Amino acid sequence: MALARGYAATDASKPLQPFTFERREPREDDVVISIKYSGICHSDIHQARNEWGNSMFPMVPGHEIAGIVTAVGSKVSKFKVGDRVGVGCFVDSCTTCASRDVDLEQYMPGLVPTYNGVEADGKTPTQGGYSDHIVVKEGYVLSIPEHLPFEATAPLLCAGITLYSPLRNWGAGPGKKVAIVGMGGLGHMGVKLAHAMGAEVTVLSQSLSKKEDGLKLGADHYYATSNAETFKTLAGTFDLILCTVSAEIDWNAYLGLLKVDGTLVLLGVPENPVPVHAFSLIPGRRSIAGSMIGSIKETQEMLDFCGEHNIVSEIELIRMDQVNEAYERVIKSDVRYRFVIDMATL
Amino acid sequence: MALARGYAATDASKPLQPFTFERREPREDDVVISIKYSGICHSDIHQARNEWGNSMFPMVPGHEIAGIVTAVGSKVSKFKVGDRVGVGCFVDSCTTCASRDVDLEQYMPGLVPTYNGVEADGKTPTQGGYSDHIVVKEGYVLSIPEHLPFEATAPLLCAGITLYSPLRNWGAGPGKKVAIVGMGGLGHMGVKLAHAMGAEVTVLSQSLSKKEDGLKLGADHYYATSNAETFKTLAGTFDLILCTVSAEIDWNAYLGLLKVDGTLVLLGVPENPVPVHAFSLIPGRRSIAGSMIGSIKETQEMLDFCGEHNIVSEIELIRMDQVNEAYERVIKSDVRYRFVIDMATL
Repeated sequence: MALARGYAATDASKPLQPFTFERREPREDDVVISIKYSGICHSDIHQARNEWGNSMFPMVPGHEIAGIVTAVGSKVSKFKVGDRVGVGCFVDSCTTCASRDVDLEQYMPGLVPTYNGVEADGKTPTQGGYSDHIVVKEGYVLSIPEHLPFEATAPLLCAGITLYSPLRNWGAGPGKKVAIVGMGGLGHMGVKLAHAMGAEVTVLSQSLSKKEDGLKLGADHYYATSNAETFKTLAGTFDLILCTVSAEIDWNAYLGLLKVDGTLVLLGVPENPVPVHAFSLIPGRRSIAGSMIGSIKETQEMLDFCGEHNIVSEIELIRMDQVNEAYERVIKSDVRYRFVIDMATL
Repeated sequence: MALARGYAATDASKPLQPFTFERREPREDDVVISIKYSGICHSDIHQARNEWGNSMFPMVPGHEIAGIVTAVGSKVSKFKVGDRVGVGCFVDSCTTCASRDVDLEQYMPGLVPTYNGVEADGKTPTQGGYSDHIVVKEGYVLSIPEHLPFEATAPLLCAGITLYSPLRNWGAGPGKKVAIVGMGGLGHMGVKLAHAMGAEVTVLSQSLSKKEDGLKLGADHYYATSNAETFKTLAGTFDLILCTVSAEIDWNAYLGLLKVDGTLVLLGVPENPVPVHAFSLIPGRRSIAGSMIGSIKETQEMLDFCGEHNIVSEIELIRMDQVNEAYERVIKSDVRYRFVIDMATL
């Protein structure tokens, strides 16, 4: 075992604080990663505060990890010391079931989350990226393109893939009209990715306060959803709407913005059930769906795509001791557009 | 103008009664059809009783029409006197918009319903199949295969296409597991059609009272949804669930029966919004969608498919003067499986 340093939530009501814990010695298929940058995802806050009711403490959050390989096990072939690598939302999965053949392991039982989970042994808790190093099986480590600004790649590992996967699955590309609901950590990645895929991109945000940014990042159009006219103007417009907000919104109004055969995809998790009227779906063969991160294969594809198109997250780099303040600002949507912790400040 | 005889609702609270009205003289692209059989759809009742709030009276319901051509306009080329033909849920549509290219005119503005609508002139009310004849533009008339028992083909025009279209759209076929929720007028057609397409078919019905019928019509499995075990046994089983009931059911429990990437399609219209929890969709990339009848092209394809596979509806043939009694029995689900009015009894 090796000692690791990090920041942890010790219970749901306390701020994160310095914490020392053990990481396993690398096995033959493990990669040891010195963590350089760790993104802050809203789900870190949900879990640190036990808002989903499944939290295990002490918990070191963080599943947007960018780091450098410092050691590899004897059977590791894809990575070597010095490589730039990433770790996302999970570090193991069921490899026996059919899912691995179709690269959808993120949806299968047996998934081991990067933190707030237990390893395949059924007992060892996993701890995440707000820490100095992590030990991860080779198959769950991603390559990060060398030329991208390193600190801004961390959020690709969750925010990036969360948007990339549904854009690909529902065919975003030339000739398709895509709306991104919410211009935050997830939403701004959706704008960049959908634009790079060649889709016509519209941001639907509560206000126009981030309009200039949205257009700069690749949006073709930007509308305020606080203006009722928006829903008249855009009725029947979109092939795909990706909804990154978890607030209670007028879902049936948003469904009305879809074309025939259009799909609204939930990426955020609203607290209450979404009341969908059948008349919002049936007369246009519309769908409402959900999507969750992506497979390891698709995450690597996303990173390579970002490398080709020079896509990274817009970030605000912070010190480790600013994490609790950053959490408060995430809750108030007061960040453009993702906090990344500089782990050198740990 | 020609006088037509039928049965009409004169207001939302009165039983249907004999009614005489005018049909237009055939235009050059019209087909005149002597109606032989007219199916009773639950939506006839909703509209005759103004349960959707959009009813126009007097109203002659009926959009499952099977009849014989008695005259054709000078420019009609597809039909001749004596042909067996059908008319479904609409008799005109917008032909200028893009929809016609992709054969999805049923979802487009400009659709003229067979009854309880107005013609393209914006004022002439349309009247449906509970009548002696109907005059319909050639492009909205369907050919009914000669060898099928004629009276049992009428329900194909709505119940049949309502199930056929989503089965095709969501890829029902060999290797796919399809569940049909509800074993009624729509559901029993779903069983026959999905079976003929080669899918593995499961009926999910409140009780096992129609199990024998279900298996006879082509179901491979039959489960009672009143038994909580059903939802444990079948968790994560289906590629596609077609929901034909409009009752309030536990939607999230049904969504839990879908595989990754599975879709639950609403065909009936529940009165209240369907409360969908994001956690029912996101962790399996599941969808909930709606579907409504089919295009004219797809309806003809369905009729041809039924011809090839000898598929018709299971019906109870009634006299015209039994229509009000039949309505009461439809509401109680007391019909196996579709009422068809013998229009010779008008």
